[in-house]
Amino acid sequence: MKKVAVIMGSDSDLPLMQGALDMLGKLNIPCEAHIYSAHRTPDAAADFARNARAEGFGAIIAGAGKAAHLAGALAARTTLPVIGVPIKSSTLDGLDALLSTVQMPSGMPVATVAIDGAANAALLAAQILAVSDDTIAQKLEELRARQTEAVLLKDRALQEQK
Amino acid sequence: MKKVAVIMGSDSDLPLMQGALDMLGKLNIPCEAHIYSAHRTPDAAADFARNARAEGFGAIIAGAGKAAHLAGALAARTTLPVIGVPIKSSTLDGLDALLSTVQMPSGMPVATVAIDGAANAALLAAQILAVSDDTIAQKLEELRARQTEAVLLKDRALQEQK
Amino acid sequence: MKKVAVIMGSDSDLPLMQGALDMLGKLNIPCEAHIYSAHRTPDAAADFARNARAEGFGAIIAGAGKAAHLAGALAARTTLPVIGVPIKSSTLDGLDALLSTVQMPSGMPVATVAIDGAANAALLAAQILAVSDDTIAQKLEELRARQTEAVLLKDRALQEQK
Amino acid sequence: MKKVAVIMGSDSDLPLMQGALDMLGKLNIPCEAHIYSAHRTPDAAADFARNARAEGFGAIIAGAGKAAHLAGALAARTTLPVIGVPIKSSTLDGLDALLSTVQMPSGMPVATVAIDGAANAALLAAQILAVSDDTIAQKLEELRARQTEAVLLKDRALQEQK
Amino acid sequence: MKKVAVIMGSDSDLPLMQGALDMLGKLNIPCEAHIYSAHRTPDAAADFARNARAEGFGAIIAGAGKAAHLAGALAARTTLPVIGVPIKSSTLDGLDALLSTVQMPSGMPVATVAIDGAANAALLAAQILAVSDDTIAQKLEELRARQTEAVLLKDRALQEQK
Amino acid sequence: MKKVAVIMGSDSDLPLMQGALDMLGKLNIPCEAHIYSAHRTPDAAADFARNARAEGFGAIIAGAGKAAHLAGALAARTTLPVIGVPIKSSTLDGLDALLSTVQMPSGMPVATVAIDGAANAALLAAQILAVSDDTIAQKLEELRARQTEAVLLKDRALQEQK
Amino acid sequence: MKKVAVIMGSDSDLPLMQGALDMLGKLNIPCEAHIYSAHRTPDAAADFARNARAEGFGAIIAGAGKAAHLAGALAARTTLPVIGVPIKSSTLDGLDALLSTVQMPSGMPVATVAIDGAANAALLAAQILAVSDDTIAQKLEELRARQTEAVLLKDRALQEQK
Amino acid sequence: MKKVAVIMGSDSDLPLMQGALDMLGKLNIPCEAHIYSAHRTPDAAADFARNARAEGFGAIIAGAGKAAHLAGALAARTTLPVIGVPIKSSTLDGLDALLSTVQMPSGMPVATVAIDGAANAALLAAQILAVSDDTIAQKLEELRARQTEAVLLKDRALQEQK
Repeated sequence: MKKVAVIMGSDSDLPLMQGALDMLGKLNIPCEAHIYSAHRTPDAAADFARNARAEGFGAIIAGAGKAAHLAGALAARTTLPVIGVPIKSSTLDGLDALLSTVQMPSGMPVATVAIDGAANAALLAAQILAVSDDTIAQKLEELRARQTEAVLLKDRALQEQK
Repeated sequence: MKKVAVIMGSDSDLPLMQGALDMLGKLNIPCEAHIYSAHRTPDAAADFARNARAEGFGAIIAGAGKAAHLAGALAARTTLPVIGVPIKSSTLDGLDALLSTVQMPSGMPVATVAIDGAANAALLAAQILAVSDDTIAQKLEELRARQTEAVLLKDRALQEQK
Repeated sequence: MKKVAVIMGSDSDLPLMQGALDMLGKLNIPCEAHIYSAHRTPDAAADFARNARAEGFGAIIAGAGKAAHLAGALAARTTLPVIGVPIKSSTLDGLDALLSTVQMPSGMPVATVAIDGAANAALLAAQILAVSDDTIAQKLEELRARQTEAVLLKDRALQEQK
Repeated sequence: MKKVAVIMGSDSDLPLMQGALDMLGKLNIPCEAHIYSAHRTPDAAADFARNARAEGFGAIIAGAGKAAHLAGALAARTTLPVIGVPIKSSTLDGLDALLSTVQMPSGMPVATVAIDGAANAALLAAQILAVSDDTIAQKLEELRARQTEAVLLKDRALQEQK
Repeated sequence: MKKVAVIMGSDSDLPLMQGALDMLGKLNIPCEAHIYSAHRTPDAAADFARNARAEGFGAIIAGAGKAAHLAGALAARTTLPVIGVPIKSSTLDGLDALLSTVQMPSGMPVATVAIDGAANAALLAAQILAVSDDTIAQKLEELRARQTEAVLLKDRALQEQK
Repeated sequence: MKKVAVIMGSDSDLPLMQGALDMLGKLNIPCEAHIYSAHRTPDAAADFARNARAEGFGAIIAGAGKAAHLAGALAARTTLPVIGVPIKSSTLDGLDALLSTVQMPSGMPVATVAIDGAANAALLAAQILAVSDDTIAQKLEELRARQTEAVLLKDRALQEQK
Repeated sequence: MKKVAVIMGSDSDLPLMQGALDMLGKLNIPCEAHIYSAHRTPDAAADFARNARAEGFGAIIAGAGKAAHLAGALAARTTLPVIGVPIKSSTLDGLDALLSTVQMPSGMPVATVAIDGAANAALLAAQILAVSDDTIAQKLEELRARQTEAVLLKDRALQEQK
Repeated sequence: MKKVAVIMGSDSDLPLMQGALDMLGKLNIPCEAHIYSAHRTPDAAADFARNARAEGFGAIIAGAGKAAHLAGALAARTTLPVIGVPIKSSTLDGLDALLSTVQMPSGMPVATVAIDGAANAALLAAQILAVSDDTIAQKLEELRARQTEAVLLKDRALQEQK
């Protein structure tokens, strides 16, 4: 099975990005987490992206805040799908990270999810692998069904409550 | 080979979304275009998404403007990757479409590209198919190499110009 | 008397949307609350909206955060007035929910109230029912008069205080 | 049948607000248009709103730009539903009018539609009257069905085109 | 000496608007505070503004949050200078109040100060009275000189500290 | 009679600021226009402000775009009321000029009007002078009455038109 | 004398960035222009930055639009001062480029100038070289004096005009 | 060696601006801190800037919040590079200070760093001095190498942790 990489620009992003690792674990998708900064370790980040397909990765998740270049810097070195997680920092409520991640120039897409949407990034990575992996597709369908059921149960509880 | 769907909310979005169809054509990826609105034809949109995996689609591209619910409405009915293209309309410069597309709730990701980024959406779809299709992966690498070469040529032209 | 539906996308929205339920209770307007998500239970939401007029509802209030599609998804399945409450979540201060709710495309209005304006949504629903129900109209006039009186009393208290 | 009022702050808003008058005409809903400014003719605006219910109006549509106080000023003098149309002016792309219209304080809702959404405001007014008027409800259902059919036809045309 | 009015839309604005009252007190400028809401007590607000010049007021300060219409509503009934204080509320960081206060239409200015700038509003009112009142002008000059001196003292303290 | 100064940061602002000069002319208020830049001629700007009260000015209007410091720079050298006109430039729709003008620190108010609101700035200056000048107050009342009448006439024309 | 590099992400940025080249030419500062993209030619960009100090450059100007990573990508490979010019593109009025350029993480500054501020970027580069180069310092002082004189002349012309 | 000035508009900015002083200390760059306000002590600020080059300064760092004119006011009186630090205050999340600092008019650049980016401002000042000072250049290279190493170590720790 293809692996998913979860890259973050700083160890301070780990608590948030753990949401992606947890979701991947829940779906039994092998993954690898790395702290690589687009600005402090640009070569390590570039090397990782350049070799990712050959190393058996199927998708790369990249989380970063402020002028969030990490997802784009990885996307510049691979044709694997790169999923960007804009991370809210102490100012501007994540708008800076969102625009820095999503507004990529022609020829170089980054699949951007919601601000702080680490778990959704993992789900999107799983959806990507599931295009050619029926086991994951099956798991995603089950997870979806459980999500639906959970909301319906809460609605029923609300009806009884009154 | 898996197909890619290109869905748009209105025929007025066709000139912009043609950019996605052209890029898919250039990469020889089979695709199908539809005009389905999240609000005017919600059932047709839902039916399409529900059957998309069985019909042989590997990814769905959805372009919409203003309160752009189309990508999210499709994502709610399939576990295929859904790629959202926020389309700029006459007010707010596309910010409304961007936030309506990218800020999806937990459990339901939309892979969002730049405002008006139809061609990038097609590239992202190709990257997704390429995870398990070496022919597309090869084509993406070639396209990428040509992009790089084109910039380097322009730089050389600039040097000679002076 | 027509009923008012109060739909919310998640049980975490209940504390906020309780403000709508309380106001409807205060005005003796029969209401029903449901947890239906535009994305997790799209069919339940659609079914509810499709049947709402026949079930005796006169207006639907829908509260949701982030890429808030709930009000629009309901509006797509009914010609009853749908009132949208954009709910502030952990980022962007409710701007994402506001734009996702209010910027509806041509043909499909959502009556949007202020961010987190659940009580105002209930008042608007009451105003809608009051168009053909003099009892509610009367109650709204009384409530309005008490509001005015309360401000005047506070002003008088302020004058005496000094 | 109840009438709908269409109020605008300036005659320069007439071309845009005509969209509301046209839609009301199409639905055979009697309406009256007025130019009343919240700031230049505050008393005329207040008088109109104060008498609107007694004069047989069922809803008031108010369109204004910039610091758009008109809808709120009318809402302060009536318990009829007031529908606000934020109008884009030469700066800030309508964001000023949107926030000035929608962010109403507790106790005083304005049913806000999209920036420049005059036709949708008329539809919302019709939906409000239709709560107790089956003829209008019927017309809205037909209009909705025609909207749906138009999109489906465009989709079919797109399929044949290729 | 002309008086200054300090009007606020709700008693919850009093702690903030107290800053204006304190500054006026410090400058020995007679003032009167009122709680009048543009929406809940529109007639009281209008009456106050209409009579303000005759009652001996020279300037009106109006503080309000969200869709802040108060300053504009007062300005519509008087040709006295009206100073608007946009007040930050629980969402949007005061941007809604700022735009609702400052973006007034042609013919109806509101002298807007910074978000939550109650003390500055009082200073501006004092500057307005000082155009024809040398005593106040003198006091403003002294206050200004003390402000300057205070900063210079802090700079000197900083130099010695090191 | 006190004079009003109209200062602009660049001669390219003259067409817009002419709106202020025209309004002052209409009200027969003596005025003086200057091109002084907060950044290119800071000393000339400072000297002007420092001497303005002694030179017989009663208010200063300052128009500038982008990082619009002009109004603040003048306000720092005088205790006369300074009225700021944020001017829209080629990017950001005037938001930069608005925030740079209105968000003044404690102790140093600038009376800010709408983006590009030159005529309103002149009206505000007139209102300020009118606090102690009954002739101007009278003219402002007449202008206001004509404004009101003009809107009422347009409303009547609209009624007849139909 | 140290050279200044002017790097742009695309040849479509050349008309705007020409403003920087012209200003450097006017100041007789040797410069070199290159088209290097952070995303399409990341290695060429990185190589250039890595060698820039050794090649005799004293500052690097980088202009890019949308998710503008170019300045940051260069700054990550050199300790020379990097000056970022955010370039306005077809959506969001340059706000995306501004935030992507200026909001750099700790340890990696980019000296950001105004949106589309190419000429100012060149002036800043000249100011940086002038710290240790009295000839450039002298030229900057002369340019500044001419700027001041030009504004004063325009003010005098305005006085005579009337 | 040239000195660096660290100017702030208020002593309340000292805790934040201390980050700049600490970084300069770490790099052994002589510096001087001052509290000068663009608005409260405009002459002291202007005098400082006018004499800064002659006093041996090589760069000026200026931190201010809200309508942050300080960096621009200093830049108007010197041709030394001026580095602006926009400081977040109680509203608008620093956007007002960012735009007031970065959007400088033609001819008058301010080298703007991230909101609250005091340490980065010091690094930029050091980079500027390093253009002609190999000792500082060497220190910056070492600091950069340590930064890179720190991230790589954290990545290794993360790998072992699992």
